[in-house]
Amino acid sequence: MSLALMLGRRGQGRTWPNPSVGCVIVRESRIIGRGRTADGGRPHAETEALNQAGAAARGATAYVALEPCAHHGQTPPCAEALIAAGVARVVAPMADSDPRVAGQGFALLQKAGIEVTTGVLANEAARDLDGFLMRTEHGRPHLTLKLASSFDGRIATATGQSQWITGPAARRHVHALRARHDAVMVGAGTARMDDPSLTVRDLGIAQQPVRVVVSRRLDLPMMSKLARSAKLAPLWLCHGPDADPSLVDAWQGIGATLIPCGLTGRQLDVRSVLQELGAQGLTRVFCEGGGGLAASLLAADLVDEMVGYTAGLAIGAEGLPAIGALGLSQLRDAPRFHLVESQTIAGDMMHRWVRA
Amino acid sequence: MSLALMLGRRGQGRTWPNPSVGCVIVRESRIIGRGRTADGGRPHAETEALNQAGAAARGATAYVALEPCAHHGQTPPCAEALIAAGVARVVAPMADSDPRVAGQGFALLQKAGIEVTTGVLANEAARDLDGFLMRTEHGRPHLTLKLASSFDGRIATATGQSQWITGPAARRHVHALRARHDAVMVGAGTARMDDPSLTVRDLGIAQQPVRVVVSRRLDLPMMSKLARSAKLAPLWLCHGPDADPSLVDAWQGIGATLIPCGLTGRQLDVRSVLQELGAQGLTRVFCEGGGGLAASLLAADLVDEMVGYTAGLAIGAEGLPAIGALGLSQLRDAPRFHLVESQTIAGDMMHRWVRA
Repeated sequence: MSLALMLGRRGQGRTWPNPSVGCVIVRESRIIGRGRTADGGRPHAETEALNQAGAAARGATAYVALEPCAHHGQTPPCAEALIAAGVARVVAPMADSDPRVAGQGFALLQKAGIEVTTGVLANEAARDLDGFLMRTEHGRPHLTLKLASSFDGRIATATGQSQWITGPAARRHVHALRARHDAVMVGAGTARMDDPSLTVRDLGIAQQPVRVVVSRRLDLPMMSKLARSAKLAPLWLCHGPDADPSLVDAWQGIGATLIPCGLTGRQLDVRSVLQELGAQGLTRVFCEGGGGLAASLLAADLVDEMVGYTAGLAIGAEGLPAIGALGLSQLRDAPRFHLVESQTIAGDMMHRWVRA
Repeated sequence: MSLALMLGRRGQGRTWPNPSVGCVIVRESRIIGRGRTADGGRPHAETEALNQAGAAARGATAYVALEPCAHHGQTPPCAEALIAAGVARVVAPMADSDPRVAGQGFALLQKAGIEVTTGVLANEAARDLDGFLMRTEHGRPHLTLKLASSFDGRIATATGQSQWITGPAARRHVHALRARHDAVMVGAGTARMDDPSLTVRDLGIAQQPVRVVVSRRLDLPMMSKLARSAKLAPLWLCHGPDADPSLVDAWQGIGATLIPCGLTGRQLDVRSVLQELGAQGLTRVFCEGGGGLAASLLAADLVDEMVGYTAGLAIGAEGLPAIGALGLSQLRDAPRFHLVESQTIAGDMMHRWVRA
């Protein structure tokens, strides 16, 4: 089961809207087939593992990181494939929360006389499938907020200088995290100030995560790195209903995907932004700031996980804050997170927290 | 030698203005005497260890964490005591930087026919004696800056609420660090806002560190915990030359020690504050903020070490910054530190950095 989960994690960021699932087929204590959801979401893990196992699958045990699908989508259901192959037992952590599956996969298997064991490593599997489960249950992607800041929580000097606060090893670590997400997201201010490309570099990956910029008015420079690379890696712009139609056309013209979202007061509604991204199929989004977008997401209780990189320098109070105004007066109202991991990365400190 | 250093570390915070030094006497692979500088600074480590060893010290080796003293102060010189006891060999990490000793201790020993070995664990010893060395070489104490902040570098909400950002285990860790310093220091703003007592609690220590408040005008509440406890634990007030003489008298009247310091522009000069504290004998000072004092110390390049406690909550940009304005525009001008230690303390993260 552990191996099936590990195989599943390898595909994170490249199978959306499908979950990245692993499958291991074992017969007489030997692994005779293994597979994971292919990049792009198809074929499914079970198909690949059954292909490897061939006729030997008869009487074997299949370990699958999620309930096998039961519905006829673009591929025939995996539950039927397992039955046809003659496996004797299926072990899975949990039922699929997708209403098209939701227990029906297990029911099909059991009706065919296959023994079904569930609940194995369920917590680990739920963590690996956080994005898929969030989207099927709440319609929005799982959101990780990344902050690379000075010792005193600043992401840039007063003049906007932010390159570089953390060292090259920490920045490389960020690229590896980008690659494990379906999309990388920033606010318009960061897009304007830092002129980032938001691509994954030097890691030899074939498929770039979607780049998402949240900009109510689409007032972003057309000469930016993001604009110039819109045809090389997907660029999605979440904008308000009142964005200038000529700007909408211009960005569409250079290859960007335009996603109209709702407003709350005078700002883009981040709830609406995440719902729209979920509707587009994204399951795991990695937000890299800036402070304004981070604050809006925290205030709306949409941050599931935070990853901090703290560097050993002090910028002082004039510097740009990592998290903008939250409107808190009482400490008890502050959004709280649990520390789940911390490590030193070549002089910088990485720390990961999940919603309390 | 390691044991001698460990013994010395045990007395940190309680021997100033003397260094906290350990001494171990070994004969035929057996420890026959051990000692450390007594609380208050006397008797010295060698005296105690030689007393334990008695006549067996003849022909033994003495491991001392610092060059034995050679001058007649309030106690006879330790170098003479070692000679009188008949030890055959003295091992020490380094010469004493105190000009009254500075190699003369070793010279005395060698003249008496004692073999002297130096350079053993010199880096470790220098770290343990950081405060003593800083004071003898630069006239000021070693300064550690402590910051307990939210994930986004805030030490309080906009309304000043700061109790509590970190958990009880982290706060207990702070008390243990206070106990290892000669003095705990805060700025006037923190003294007014938090009404701290700055004592070491629940650790069963006999001697409280000095409490130092930096307040140009002495405009501190006389009904504060600090004022009311001035007779129970030392309270020193560093003030400007222009402080109201009636306030000087009032604070002296309740038992505080008043220390006039110089100004730089309209602010107390933190260089002058640290020189005055050094002149009073302090070797290790633990500064607990607030943001204004932290910024002044960083800007003056007086921070030797930083200890951060990061809690898993976000306060947002209206919150009080851990470090005030530094007047930086270029990242390359930011004060930089090396990470030397990090650990999780019951959900909070502790990280220690030293000047790069």
